[in-house]
Amino acid sequence: MGTIERIRQKTPLVHHITNDVVMNFTANGLLSFGGSPIMAKEMSEVKEIASIADGLLLNIGTALAADIDAMVLAGKAANEAEVPVVLDPVGVAASAFRRQATERLLEEITFTAIKGNAGEIAHLAGASWEARGVDSADGDIEQLEHIAKDPANKYETIIVVTGPVDVIAWPGSDHALKNDTGVELLTKVTGAGCLLGSLLAAGLGAHKDEKELAHIVYDVLKFYGEASERAASGVTGTGTFAARFIDELAAEEN
Amino acid sequence: MGTIERIRQKTPLVHHITNDVVMNFTANGLLSFGGSPIMAKEMSEVKEIASIADGLLLNIGTALAADIDAMVLAGKAANEAEVPVVLDPVGVAASAFRRQATERLLEEITFTAIKGNAGEIAHLAGASWEARGVDSADGDIEQLEHIAKDPANKYETIIVVTGPVDVIAWPGSDHALKNDTGVELLTKVTGAGCLLGSLLAAGLGAHKDEKELAHIVYDVLKFYGEASERAASGVTGTGTFAARFIDELAAEEN
Amino acid sequence: MGTIERIRQKTPLVHHITNDVVMNFTANGLLSFGGSPIMAKEMSEVKEIASIADGLLLNIGTALAADIDAMVLAGKAANEAEVPVVLDPVGVAASAFRRQATERLLEEITFTAIKGNAGEIAHLAGASWEARGVDSADGDIEQLEHIAKDPANKYETIIVVTGPVDVIAWPGSDHALKNDTGVELLTKVTGAGCLLGSLLAAGLGAHKDEKELAHIVYDVLKFYGEASERAASGVTGTGTFAARFIDELAAEEN
Repeated sequence: MGTIERIRQKTPLVHHITNDVVMNFTANGLLSFGGSPIMAKEMSEVKEIASIADGLLLNIGTALAADIDAMVLAGKAANEAEVPVVLDPVGVAASAFRRQATERLLEEITFTAIKGNAGEIAHLAGASWEARGVDSADGDIEQLEHIAKDPANKYETIIVVTGPVDVIAWPGSDHALKNDTGVELLTKVTGAGCLLGSLLAAGLGAHKDEKELAHIVYDVLKFYGEASERAASGVTGTGTFAARFIDELAAEEN
Repeated sequence: MGTIERIRQKTPLVHHITNDVVMNFTANGLLSFGGSPIMAKEMSEVKEIASIADGLLLNIGTALAADIDAMVLAGKAANEAEVPVVLDPVGVAASAFRRQATERLLEEITFTAIKGNAGEIAHLAGASWEARGVDSADGDIEQLEHIAKDPANKYETIIVVTGPVDVIAWPGSDHALKNDTGVELLTKVTGAGCLLGSLLAAGLGAHKDEKELAHIVYDVLKFYGEASERAASGVTGTGTFAARFIDELAAEEN
Repeated sequence: MGTIERIRQKTPLVHHITNDVVMNFTANGLLSFGGSPIMAKEMSEVKEIASIADGLLLNIGTALAADIDAMVLAGKAANEAEVPVVLDPVGVAASAFRRQATERLLEEITFTAIKGNAGEIAHLAGASWEARGVDSADGDIEQLEHIAKDPANKYETIIVVTGPVDVIAWPGSDHALKNDTGVELLTKVTGAGCLLGSLLAAGLGAHKDEKELAHIVYDVLKFYGEASERAASGVTGTGTFAARFIDELAAEEN
């Protein structure tokens, strides 16, 4: 059975503590893809919900201080229940608050995967990368592989650097997986990357007993990019593209 | 004048304290349908706004503890001003927090209608129903009628159980109204049910002086389902369907 | 170079503290238009982010008391860094909380522009205008010009009154600019006006060293209205229109 087909068979429940801008798009994208979304950030329920979920996504895009507390509680509960946790450190370099929040999450929670653009992952690696706001320029693939390996080893997690070519590194990896599916329109749809984080949590949740999780991540990235390619055909801009992209996330696996 | 036509003539102002995932879709759906949305949850304004509204919708989908406090204030003010109040206890069975929040709302506020899927309403009835996360399996209609009558009598409110066949019960009813319009695609659009709660609040607000409010609820459900049927024609998935569904909510009443 | 072309060349970063209903639509609209959105309201990061942004938009549509505190911090930091600030006092007349919050913002922050519908701007002018909820009736243009001039002088800011004909006044102006592009469908899409506030912040940010900022505002309003006219052609309602409108915001300037 293919990776995507297996996700659909399990319809993994993904608990999201994510940013306010992208909640609707994320939930619709995950539903179309074949998962089941739940969003909850009330401190008194996040442990309970994270524990029964198949995956947990933490995204700091519009987090308040209280949301980071909720993320820590949820993340620890997920770790205890062996629920895969994905981190999306949106705009980590944009403020001291985001830097410190991300550091705290990395200290207190074990992540199965961390995804970000080049600027965000470079920040985790302590490398320099020109970043501005939440969107960052993309650069040389070899440099990105180098940048990705450092946090992969340091935090013992899969690292996904998204861009024209996505780079996937993992602990101890001597090479990286690369994916070049996807269209540039995706960079003009808010939350496209955030939705990918949710799909990764679903994929890791549905396949959590497997050893080669980096390949699961690759399969999800490839499928996601191909869906964007099909969706881009015939649309007149990002508004109609976003709707068609949701549609295409339900397509059959190649 | 038809039920929907009268709603449009009144353009009822619906005050929402609803979940973060669905606010945009709800507001656009209600606007297209013919109502006027306002969203407000700041403690110091909810009484004032609930009092001047024509309907109030309370939806616990992503509520924080403070939001429940705001809901209680708004609900009591609405009760005092004789503004119809609709409850959507999203995912009530998913956590202790949601169970307790729902109990508190049911104790402190008189609802005109409560809507939920089978799992949510079964929870209110103290009945067992297999539920997981916010989406629940749908089951046998007869059993649903039985399940719906119990909270209808206990809380003296109209109960709407949504599913392939929607069931509407009311206090003292010896039968139930059933509606079978609607397409399965609706279950894959986040907030489709939440939007229905908003439309019900608008319908009840525009018709609040009538005796047979269960029939108003039925008319809104029927119209909503038929809109989804028209919207499903020719779309390629849930993304394009959601946009077309908003369009069809503005259609003429049959 | 045209006004819109220059905005695109600069891709201004706009910091939003805006209402929960419209965040996604605003971010996608600004991205399509050619700006770069960031949303942040955590107290400990808003000063930092407002200072590095090219524009700041404050929108009180669903603000909590804590959000108003964050707006004051961000607004003062923007003022200090000479970042243009736009205010959208959504539903200012709907509650005492909104009235007081708006008063406080006007006292503590210097705005480059304030936009609202007739009812909202009339409230700032201390004039009477029939308003209900967040949407207000539109009225006589001459009266609107009169209403707009008062807060323009009092708060030394550009005032934009949106409606079938938009009216733009500025401090000391003896006339007003008027724009009549745009379609009525816009009034049925939640957050269409909120998105305009974001585009104005982008426009003012990209042109902040120019003297005739009222003309920049006019150019943005005209472009926005023309985009809505193109988008309205061939759609079947507000759902499909909203997606097409996002598309058209990326069009070439006439």
